[in-house]
Amino acid sequence: MKVKVIKIGGKLIENGDVLSSLCDSLASLDEKFVLVHGGGVMGSHLAEQLGVEVKMHEGRRITDAATLDIAVMAYAGLANKRVVTALQKRGVNACGLSGCDMAVVKSKRREVKDIDWGFVGDVDKANGEVLAMLIEKGITPVVSPITFSAEGELLNTNADSVASAVAVGLADYMDVELVFTLDKAGVLLDVDDPQSLIAKITPSLYAELKAENKIHSGMIPKIDNAYKTIDAGVCAVRITSPDNLSGGTVVVKE
Amino acid sequence: MKVKVIKIGGKLIENGDVLSSLCDSLASLDEKFVLVHGGGVMGSHLAEQLGVEVKMHEGRRITDAATLDIAVMAYAGLANKRVVTALQKRGVNACGLSGCDMAVVKSKRREVKDIDWGFVGDVDKANGEVLAMLIEKGITPVVSPITFSAEGELLNTNADSVASAVAVGLADYMDVELVFTLDKAGVLLDVDDPQSLIAKITPSLYAELKAENKIHSGMIPKIDNAYKTIDAGVCAVRITSPDNLSGGTVVVKE
Repeated sequence: MKVKVIKIGGKLIENGDVLSSLCDSLASLDEKFVLVHGGGVMGSHLAEQLGVEVKMHEGRRITDAATLDIAVMAYAGLANKRVVTALQKRGVNACGLSGCDMAVVKSKRREVKDIDWGFVGDVDKANGEVLAMLIEKGITPVVSPITFSAEGELLNTNADSVASAVAVGLADYMDVELVFTLDKAGVLLDVDDPQSLIAKITPSLYAELKAENKIHSGMIPKIDNAYKTIDAGVCAVRITSPDNLSGGTVVVKE
Repeated sequence: MKVKVIKIGGKLIENGDVLSSLCDSLASLDEKFVLVHGGGVMGSHLAEQLGVEVKMHEGRRITDAATLDIAVMAYAGLANKRVVTALQKRGVNACGLSGCDMAVVKSKRREVKDIDWGFVGDVDKANGEVLAMLIEKGITPVVSPITFSAEGELLNTNADSVASAVAVGLADYMDVELVFTLDKAGVLLDVDDPQSLIAKITPSLYAELKAENKIHSGMIPKIDNAYKTIDAGVCAVRITSPDNLSGGTVVVKE
């Protein structure tokens, strides 16, 4: 069975019209899919309303106990249930899940070294078996970036990493394409020119583009991570805009 | 297969020690179970922190759009995920669900008559088939009182009604006991004397107690509702305290 694991940013959920249009696209996909969503914007808004200070270190958020509660409310609660109802309304039998639910995504609390990141998790692994069972029953998992540790702590986790782990976990059971959405058409030779889209990246083309300095430095970790998930069993990784879920750039082994 | 559908109030979730002790009891149950939780207190606290006025009419809450978002965050988010992780930590493979997830509990938005209650749902029905499927796979559903309508609206719903609907829905597939927890030992002849507990209520005893005015008026709707769910297929309804989930008062047909 073919399945797409699609990562979307939290920004797409906050605006009702944007969410509607995204869910129209999702509902019309030919393949089964799993959706993994972020939620950063909704968390920041709620923190602001509650007067909880957003603490950052080198551009990354520190999650104290109050911030964790906010993340759980905003991501596992509001964002997740809004997406699920929008999909249900369109006939997609969605099921919202956070990492703790059926132990779908386990993580480890990040070790304290120079800095204590608080309740932040680094993904350990996703339970592909239970996700595959749901998909085979016609259910569409909608996964929030709230995970949990073996110690029973809820943890705030990077949604890209959750999506990668879900894709790798499912790859033991299905043919998985991992889709990252962004506000560009895909990987572009010229970031200001959508016509410069690279439709397909292979390892040899990737080496060439890097050698010739033709690839935007921000894309390099994304493509490196794409190859890591492909090495772990995922068939392909697509980098595209949310309105073109079968287009954009596809990263493949050959 | 035997299953308990257990309703707990939101008050039991807010305090970590109380929740721990409840989850210890739940994890040591012999039967499989479904947990249905409220969350009123957590919603009220969040509303207060956010400066959203709690609007009431005749003692019942009116749910405007801002209040609905708060309910979704507090009940489907924080309360639900706290219970799920506390159970997972004890080896119970819990899965948090709101009504929208796999369309587990559908409701209808309450009609506007004299008063517009806003985003409040009256339960239509619970999907016993999908709940039974999860239970048979060793999964313990943890259901929040956020439901959804055919129109794709999230709705705030009475948790007792959700628990009754879940019990009735499951009764087509399993032998169901519905358990309501409260801060008394069960149905008491004298509300101030725990020794006056009635261990078992049958229709003939119930008629007698009512005729002799020996039953507290607040218990009458609870027992009437218990007999409605029994008529709809549930084996028994238990009214007890959360620390004695197989004790208290059991309401049966004979």
